[in-house]
This record gives sequence, C-alpha cells and structure tokens, in this order.
Amino acid sequence: MATDYQPPVADYAFLYREAFGTDIVARATGGELTADDGADIIAGAGEFAASVLAPLEQVGDREGARLVDGQVHLPDGFAEAYAAFVEAGWVTAEAPASAGGDGLPGSIRAGLGEIWNASNAAFALCWLLSAGQIHALDAAASDELREIYLAKLVSGEWTGTMNLTEPAAGTDLGAIRTTATPRDDGSWSIKGQKIFITWGDHDVAENIVHLVLARTPGAPEGAKGLSLFVAPKYLVNADGSLGDRNGVETVAIEHKLGIHGSPTCVLSYEDATGYLVGEVGGGLAGMFVMMNSARIGMGFQATGIADRALQQAEAYAADRMQGRVLERGGDAPIAEHPDVRRLLLSIRSDVFAMRALGVYVGDLFDRAEASEDAADLAFAEFFVPILKGWATEDAVALTSDAIQVHGGMGFIEETGAAQHYRDARIMTIYEGTTAIQSNDLIGRKVIRNEGATAETLFAQIDETVAALRGVGAGGAGEVAARTADRLERAVASARRATADVVGFGSSPRDAHAVSVPYLMLLGVLAGGWMHALAVVAVAAHEVPAAEDAARLTLADFYGAHHLPRVHALAETVASGETA
Amino acid sequence: MATDYQPPVADYAFLYREAFGTDIVARATGGELTADDGADIIAGAGEFAASVLAPLEQVGDREGARLVDGQVHLPDGFAEAYAAFVEAGWVTAEAPASAGGDGLPGSIRAGLGEIWNASNAAFALCWLLSAGQIHALDAAASDELREIYLAKLVSGEWTGTMNLTEPAAGTDLGAIRTTATPRDDGSWSIKGQKIFITWGDHDVAENIVHLVLARTPGAPEGAKGLSLFVAPKYLVNADGSLGDRNGVETVAIEHKLGIHGSPTCVLSYEDATGYLVGEVGGGLAGMFVMMNSARIGMGFQATGIADRALQQAEAYAADRMQGRVLERGGDAPIAEHPDVRRLLLSIRSDVFAMRALGVYVGDLFDRAEASEDAADLAFAEFFVPILKGWATEDAVALTSDAIQVHGGMGFIEETGAAQHYRDARIMTIYEGTTAIQSNDLIGRKVIRNEGATAETLFAQIDETVAALRGVGAGGAGEVAARTADRLERAVASARRATADVVGFGSSPRDAHAVSVPYLMLLGVLAGGWMHALAVVAVAAHEVPAAEDAARLTLADFYGAHHLPRVHALAETVASGETA
Repeated sequence: MATDYQPPVADYAFLYREAFGTDIVARATGGELTADDGADIIAGAGEFAASVLAPLEQVGDREGARLVDGQVHLPDGFAEAYAAFVEAGWVTAEAPASAGGDGLPGSIRAGLGEIWNASNAAFALCWLLSAGQIHALDAAASDELREIYLAKLVSGEWTGTMNLTEPAAGTDLGAIRTTATPRDDGSWSIKGQKIFITWGDHDVAENIVHLVLARTPGAPEGAKGLSLFVAPKYLVNADGSLGDRNGVETVAIEHKLGIHGSPTCVLSYEDATGYLVGEVGGGLAGMFVMMNSARIGMGFQATGIADRALQQAEAYAADRMQGRVLERGGDAPIAEHPDVRRLLLSIRSDVFAMRALGVYVGDLFDRAEASEDAADLAFAEFFVPILKGWATEDAVALTSDAIQVHGGMGFIEETGAAQHYRDARIMTIYEGTTAIQSNDLIGRKVIRNEGATAETLFAQIDETVAALRGVGAGGAGEVAARTADRLERAVASARRATADVVGFGSSPRDAHAVSVPYLMLLGVLAGGWMHALAVVAVAAHEVPAAEDAARLTLADFYGAHHLPRVHALAETVASGETA
Repeated sequence: MATDYQPPVADYAFLYREAFGTDIVARATGGELTADDGADIIAGAGEFAASVLAPLEQVGDREGARLVDGQVHLPDGFAEAYAAFVEAGWVTAEAPASAGGDGLPGSIRAGLGEIWNASNAAFALCWLLSAGQIHALDAAASDELREIYLAKLVSGEWTGTMNLTEPAAGTDLGAIRTTATPRDDGSWSIKGQKIFITWGDHDVAENIVHLVLARTPGAPEGAKGLSLFVAPKYLVNADGSLGDRNGVETVAIEHKLGIHGSPTCVLSYEDATGYLVGEVGGGLAGMFVMMNSARIGMGFQATGIADRALQQAEAYAADRMQGRVLERGGDAPIAEHPDVRRLLLSIRSDVFAMRALGVYVGDLFDRAEASEDAADLAFAEFFVPILKGWATEDAVALTSDAIQVHGGMGFIEETGAAQHYRDARIMTIYEGTTAIQSNDLIGRKVIRNEGATAETLFAQIDETVAALRGVGAGGAGEVAARTADRLERAVASARRATADVVGFGSSPRDAHAVSVPYLMLLGVLAGGWMHALAVVAVAAHEVPAAEDAARLTLADFYGAHHLPRVHALAETVASGETA
C-alpha cells in the first residue's frame, strides 16, 4: 500500500525564510507576500494534494487511460479531482498575472510543482502541460487568441498540450513534416501525425488546446521553417461556445512502463483548423518558452517523485521489524540498520538538494525578470539544463534505492514502490533527454562565453565557503568546517572540468563525449552548495530550531556520499572522447 | 521488438585462452578440455539460447505465470523449451561429476549462466535453482536421497527450489517458524508457510523438489536451530514412480515488477512429508552451499541481463536515424551521436568487466578445490559478495542506460527495453540484498583477517600494473600506460579504504554505514583489473586480432568513466557513519 502523502512544508518555510539569506518571497513580491504566506500556500496545496490527488495515484497506475471509440477515458476519480483542482484555483495560481493568473513568485510555484507531482505525477502532467502553454501563449499570442484560449486555460476549464514529436522527428525537431496551409479566413489547415502527446486526449475537461509545431508552404528546411499553431479539440464558435470536433483524431495511446494515468497519444491531423501563434517561422522560439517552463517543471517532478518514494520507504522501514541491530538486542525496525539508514539518508539528502535548487532557480527567474542586466537571465537559464538533467537522473536512481529499502516487498507491485521507479524512468527522456540538456549547457551556456556564467556560480560558492569558515566552534561548527573543506575541493574540481570543457571548444567530439558527466558534476556541486547554504542558515540560529540537527546531518551526509562524485566526474570530463 | 540474441563467443574464447595469461580451461581440466572446447560449448549453448529461449522472453513477460485451481501454468512454449533444454543436456552440463553431471569447469559454467540469463532470465531462474540444489544435495544428502532426488535433478526430469523466506523471516533467517517433526518411519512432518519461492510450482516438469529450512522440536532459537529437508511436490513410491501429492499447496503467486515468466509462489506446508538432508541443526550450513552457488549465479544473471539490454540498445542505435552528427553532414544513425556512443560504451565496458570477473571467480573456485591451501578458498569466497553485489547494482543502472539510448521508445513496453529494466531490479534483492553481501564482505572477509585477503588482491593488481608498464610504445602502449596510471591510483584508494574499514573494526556502526560503498569500490576496482588484464593480453599479440582495437577502447573507456568512482567511494568510506 502506498502511504499517505506528507507535504514538506517545513522545508519550504526554511527555504523561503532563511536558507538564501533573506525572505525570498517578500523580495520577489515587493513585500506583498512573505515567506509565511508562501509556507501557508504550500500547506494548503499539500492538504489538497494529500486528500484529493494522492489517493488516485495507484488507481491511475492500475487502471490506466483507455481509448474507446476514439475517445480517451481516464480512471475513475480523475475527472472529479480535476474539477476540484480547478475549483480550488490551483491552475490559476500557476499562471502569471499578465495572463490573468495569480502571478505567484517562482519560488512558490516550485513548491506547488513538487507537490502535484509527488502526490500524483500522472495527474500533474496535465497541469504541467497547461502551465507551459499558458506561458507560451502569454508570450506570443494575439489578443484574439488570448481572449478565447488563454483565458480558458488560465481558468482551468480547458487543458493544453504540446505537439512536437513525430515518428521521424524526436530530438531533431528540424525533421518535422506536419504542414500548415493558410486558408482564406485567416485560419490554417493542419495535416500530419504527432506522437507522444501527453494528455493529448481525455475526458476531464470540455476542451483541449493543442499547441502544434508545423511547416508552412515554402518555409525553409529544418527548424527555422517551423511555425506555432493553436488547434483545439472542439472548434470554438464566435460566441465562445463549443462547436464541432476539429479534424484532430486520437489514433492510439501508448502502453508504457509508467505514468499509466497520463494518456500518451498518437494524434492525427486531417485538415484540422489551427491559428497562428506569433510570426510565421517563429515556431521554435515560441515553443521554447513552453519547453523552458516544462524543463524547470521536470526538476519539480523529479523532486516530487523522489520524495514520495522516500516517504513510502521511510514508512516501511519504520514499521518493518527484521533482525537485530548490531550492539542492540532484540528485534528492531529496519530503519535502524546502518545500510537502510544509509539508503534513506542518501535519498533524503538528495531530495533536499533538488528541492532547494528548484526554489533557487524559480527565484532566479523572478530576479532576472526584474533586472536590467542580461547576465542575470543568462545565470537563471544556465540552471535549466542542470536542474532538469541532474535532478531527473538522480531521481531515477533514488526511486531504485527506495525499492531496495523494501527488500523483496519492493518488487511486488501492490507495495507501490515499483510504481515510482516505473513512473520516474521517463523523466530523463521527455522535455529533452539528458544529452540534449547537456548539449544546451556546454554549447550555449559554457563554451560560448568561455565559462563566464559557470564562474559566476563558482564565485558564489566561494562566498559560501567563506561563510562556512566563519562559523564558530561548537553547534554547527564541525559540520560547517567539514562542509567548507569538501565544497572547496569540489569547486576546484568543477573549475578544472570547466576549463577542460572550454578547452574542448575546438574539438566538439571531445566536448560532447563528456557533456553529460559535466552536467552531472555541476548538478551534484549545486546540490552541495544548497546544503552548504542550509548549514550557514542553521549556524545563524541563536535558538536552535527543531529541524536544525537533521539539516546538519543531511548536509554532512550529502558531503560524504554525494559530493565526492564531483571528483570522479571531473576525471571523466578530462578524458574527453575515448579513442 | 526485442532483437535476436547474439552469444558473446569471442569474449569467452578470449577469456578462456589468454586474458588470464594461460588456457584456464586446460588448466582446470588437466588438459581434458581446452579453451577452444570451452568456446565451442559456449557457441552451442548460445545457438540453443538464441533459437529456443530468447523467442520466449517477451511472451513470458506479457503472459506471465498463472495460478489456476492450485496449479501454476507457465506461458505457452515454456514446457516445450524446458524439455528441449533437458534433452540437449544443459541441466546435466551444470552438475558436478560427483553428482553424475558433466563436471564442466567453473569458467565454462560462468558462460552458460550468462547465456541462459541473457536469453531468458525468467526461464534461467528454474535452471539456477535446480543447479543450486544439486550442489547442496551433492554436498550433504544421504545415498538414498541422492539416488532418488539428486539423480532426477541432474537429469533435469525434476526441478529444484529453495525455501527459506517466511513473512516474518526475510533477511533474518533466525526468525524462521516452519517446523519439522519426526515421524516413526524416519520421515518428517513439515508445517508452515514459505513465501517468495521462485519456480515454487509450475507445469514444465513432472515433479518439484523443495529444499526447506525448518525448525526441529527442541532446537535452539535462531539460525542454529534450523535443519534442511527435501520435500517433493509429488511423493515418490518405492519403485521410483510418482505417488500422491505431498502436503504442499501453492496458495498464491506474486504480481511482480518483472520476471513475470518466473512464478514466485507462496507455499503452504500442512503435514507435508520431508526428508532430512545432513544433520539436525546443520540446515544453514547446507543451505549456504546452495546460496553461494546462487549468489555467484546472480553475477552471471547480472551480466546476462545487462548484455541483452546492451544488444537491444546497440541494434536500435544502429538503425534509428535522427539528427546530424556534429561535423558530419546528413542524417546519421544515433549510434554516431557522442552521447549515445558514451552510453553504449559505458554499458559494454561494464558488461565485459562483469563477464571477465565471472569467469575469473568460476575458475578461482576450481583452483581452490584443487588446492591444499585454505587461503585459496578464502580468496575465491572473497569475490562472491563482490561479484553478486557490484554486478547486480551496476546491471540495474546499465539497463536504465539502455532505455535512455532508445529515447521515448524506451518507455514504450512493446520496444522490450523496459522489460530488462524491470527484470533486473530484483537482482540486488534476492539471494541476499547488497547490504547482506557487504556485511559478509566486511565482517567475515575483511575485518576478521585485517584486510589480508584484500591485500592478496591488491598485490595481484600491482603485478598487473607492472606488466602494463612493461608494454612498449606504439600499438597498445598508450592505453597500457594510461591504464597503469589509473589502476595504480585506484588500488592506492582501495588500500586506504580497506585500512579505514579495518580501523572501523571496533566501531561496527561506522563499518556497516559504509559497507556497501566499500563493496562497490572493490567491484569497480576488480572490473578495472579485468580490463587491465585484457590490455596486457592484447599487447602480447604479435599479429593483431580483429577485436584488439575494440578491447583497448573498452579498457580505456572503463578507466575514464567507471574506474574514477573508486576515488569517490573511498572518500565516502573514510567518512564512516554520519552523525
């Protein structure tokens, strides 16, 4: 049995209030909201998620989505849950103020993203895709499209999808063959087949808005020839009411390893009506807005799935009696066995690192938006491939460790641990594989500026090392000193690896042969930095808080078990392409 | 679609003939068989596996085992395949000569173990359990039991199972509650429930022999009170014909994450007839013979499943066209993309390391048996937890990488890549979790002799480093020099970590908190040693062989991508328990 879901409210309160040296919610909202408000929103979302979404997680896996006579049906309870989700305002909460949403700061949206994914990742994908489309339409759509489509997405009445992939065009979007031909009335006729369309059809909302990449007549070859279109499942009448079915048909749904509650559709467009978003040829730029939002969202999904797997493993380990524990007589819960403790601390410390980095990145984008300096946006965007790539890769491994905690019961499907392992496996693939993230990182964000943005990060880590050195003896002192030593050595390895990657600039095969190890190195380092910031914050407490000791243990554990990977990865990066 | 299975004949020929400096098959058999004979046996097994077992792998997963009216039925084709397997003599091939088997050397049995598991891991478990029981009965059973049961197991007419686990007794066998009460006729009445019984019931052979751990009246508490019994599914008449059903009932089968074609049974014993194997109270010692055999077999299973996942990923990557590759114009198969190449080399180099270590360990046990020196057996047994723990942990990660090669298609069940990922996940759990392996390693095999056995390994690695240093410039020279540098640093880290573990002898919580990282360190190191031995062998070629360049690339890649983990793990080991 899956356990109840416990939202990580205390962690978010700590991150909003003090981990980054200031109340970041107040800073982002000009004081309109505070860290306490942020924690309240997280608590409210957590309550909703625990009571409405989490109970449907295993049902969604077991029953899965079904395609009957061209219509996708979701498992019992999903439609009611979606209605409640909309009613509670959680779709609108995600949307920017410019689109009519609540305009919550990125740090809070990070927490919401984690919570929806932790409680029910298959369900959360619906929200994630709608949210991405909201950002894309808000950036580029005409007033008419905003009025009709964006408004319905923001209210949650309709849901959104992202139509990129085709059978011969996965990672390589330039190979897209779907066509859009202009009609006399200003609309476009779309024709082609799209695959792997998440929530491409369903019965939980009355209409679905597809955002489609397609090629216009005479457009240049490759990705530059792509334009972006909105194509609804049901056409919309002039008065806003729903009209006929559009020419979009659900041909099949996939039989997948995981996220069975999320329908993955093959959509066939036959003279379907679409509306241009932005300029002809501006498709990729428009889709990148949605993609960036989705990639950051994957960081939250990784955190969420890993935390849920952790919570279940912790509950099992606390209950399951087996064997004696070393010096202690009598039976003990397996949580007391040193290696079970190691597994749980390994997951918990990595989940905290991901959670903190998600909040940090969410906040960075808010700061970049408020800034005049282009380097601030570059710094925020630097973290997108790192968060997406590192958090998802680690999360897959963490769900495996969570199975291990269960022993043989972890392999039995009814236990529920295996579902997280199956669900998690797609995360390193969709929204751009880890290799795609690493190419973006080394190409656009490291080699092009000769490591300048990376150095901005390293310099900030240097400052944190200095702050750790300033912590006095006693209390947090020992952990602070060890963390400073470890982080200092890790950032030195990271600087060497960055110099290696920049040096490979004229030898792209070397650079690309070790781009994923380099991405992972920066992710592991960033995670260590997040823990170091937590140690600095804890050390500043005059009166120790209840979670202080646990935060120090996690930081110390991360430094001993995760951070050393930086050195191994740096050695791999240095080797370049193996002949 | 899963691809055809290609048995790794060339690798085994290389390992038998020269990788270990001599023809190890000839050495083990006193010249009765040679490396060429060994390679022929591997080729024959590979042909059988590819044509009979591999085609049933996906069917087994899709249909799975079913329990109908107390009888387990396997998917279509399994019974015919088992009959062909027996007919071809592959069960007898595994058995020792003392039991009436072919008495093949361990190095060849390693290859067979890999091949059965690669072609069909669910099917191979039947063979693995029978093989383990053959070893256990050969070591301890009375002449009468040998005549009736061992003979039928060796011929393959009947299959064997291993009955240890109970709902409250998993890792902790001392908690076993199943009882065995003596009857007047010399047999025993067995009563209790056993769970997780692999191939505990099926319809592919006429009888099943259960090897059962149970507690006799008045026996001491804990593991010392356990005795070992044989209990058949059908009782055997005096003339050897089958009689009535014994009191063993299949109550349920498990719904598992993977290996669906292998029935995992809950067996209920109600006044079932059993026969004592060995002495009263000698159950654990007897079962350990079977367990050791099964643990080594897990190393072969890890190699097999990982190799099959690799073969499928390689075939997909060679066919799938997507995107341009850097400097090259036009579309290219994804195998040419640097990160896909990295993933494939990562899997391939690790699979070779596992395969070579499996052969090495198989051969070590033969040498230990022929030796008067107890240290030789200790050295062979030192590798059992390392091979089992490291190979299975890595194999799980490798099957995940194999999915990654497929991109989105890897998440679709029909592709077949996900099956390997699901099947593999049990390997780090059954036959003793990785934590159990690591406790065995540090407790019985490192701390107890203050690292002496580990030092025997390190000294042999030193010799290989010296041999690498003796390779002249040109040809293999560059890779030999790099490999020597890397291996020398790795063995230095391993010596430090071993000293740390020995130093934790008086602080068991520290030792056990890092026992798995220490086990993994030794596994990664042993893998690097295997590649180093391959480099030495290749360097000795006067006329280069076809595979030489590929072997050097794999060794170089392993040194750059896998071996550096040793240093990170050594840092983790040094930290002991995190406060």
